[in-house]
Amino acid sequence: MRCSVARTLDVIGEWWTMLIVRDAFRGVTRFEDFHRNLGIARTVLSTRLDRLVEHGIFTRRQYSDHPPRSEYLLTDKGRDLFPVLVTLTQWGDRWAADDDGPPLRLVHEPCEHATSPRLVCEHCGGDVNPDTVRPEPS
Amino acid sequence: MRCSVARTLDVIGEWWTMLIVRDAFRGVTRFEDFHRNLGIARTVLSTRLDRLVEHGIFTRRQYSDHPPRSEYLLTDKGRDLFPVLVTLTQWGDRWAADDDGPPLRLVHEPCEHATSPRLVCEHCGGDVNPDTVRPEPS
Repeated sequence: MRCSVARTLDVIGEWWTMLIVRDAFRGVTRFEDFHRNLGIARTVLSTRLDRLVEHGIFTRRQYSDHPPRSEYLLTDKGRDLFPVLVTLTQWGDRWAADDDGPPLRLVHEPCEHATSPRLVCEHCGGDVNPDTVRPEPS
Repeated sequence: MRCSVARTLDVIGEWWTMLIVRDAFRGVTRFEDFHRNLGIARTVLSTRLDRLVEHGIFTRRQYSDHPPRSEYLLTDKGRDLFPVLVTLTQWGDRWAADDDGPPLRLVHEPCEHATSPRLVCEHCGGDVNPDTVRPEPS
């Protein structure tokens, strides 16, 4: 399907994949740590990580020879998923949080405010929302 | 799992769901039109739409009695998925496009520029990226 949404979801549209990427942004690199955080079967996690390496979202680097142990590092392609992660988090904070409210907040370090990021036009800085943009064939 | 990403993906993390939402943002409302655009089995589409109605992403409205025909309209909760769709599209444009380049561009109507939206801090307007924000327990 000639559509960037469809193509993206073909790579990252499966539930666990995005949670692995989320953990990676929080500094997780090692199989054992992903496994402990996510609580999924080792075989499933292994398949997912392999797929993310194949798609160039992670690179695999062996940090121990005996026993052989690898770590998984986000590539530029993987780091570029950050805005997707932020907007998914915002939606969940607003529409899927429980009575305790959002579990995490995002602090913008240059200004030290807890922030709910906005999506703005790269040219004029105005809000980007369904009322201000239209898709066009490029 | 007490995590907004996990909770969001539990609702929208399945491939077809986000493509249905994408079509809805392009003005599609009727079962037959979703079906024609997406080319999936009617039973599958029907299950997906039911699930999106249950989760409050769409409301269902009957627009014809004979024969009974319904349309599906994005709620506020559904419209709030727009930033997720935009960031997914941007990633796909950059990392999953073919040689023809991105199939669509987004025009920001207030300034009439084709735009690649930026994620900025709601307080200071500075860029939000993995280097400028940190998550904290809230």
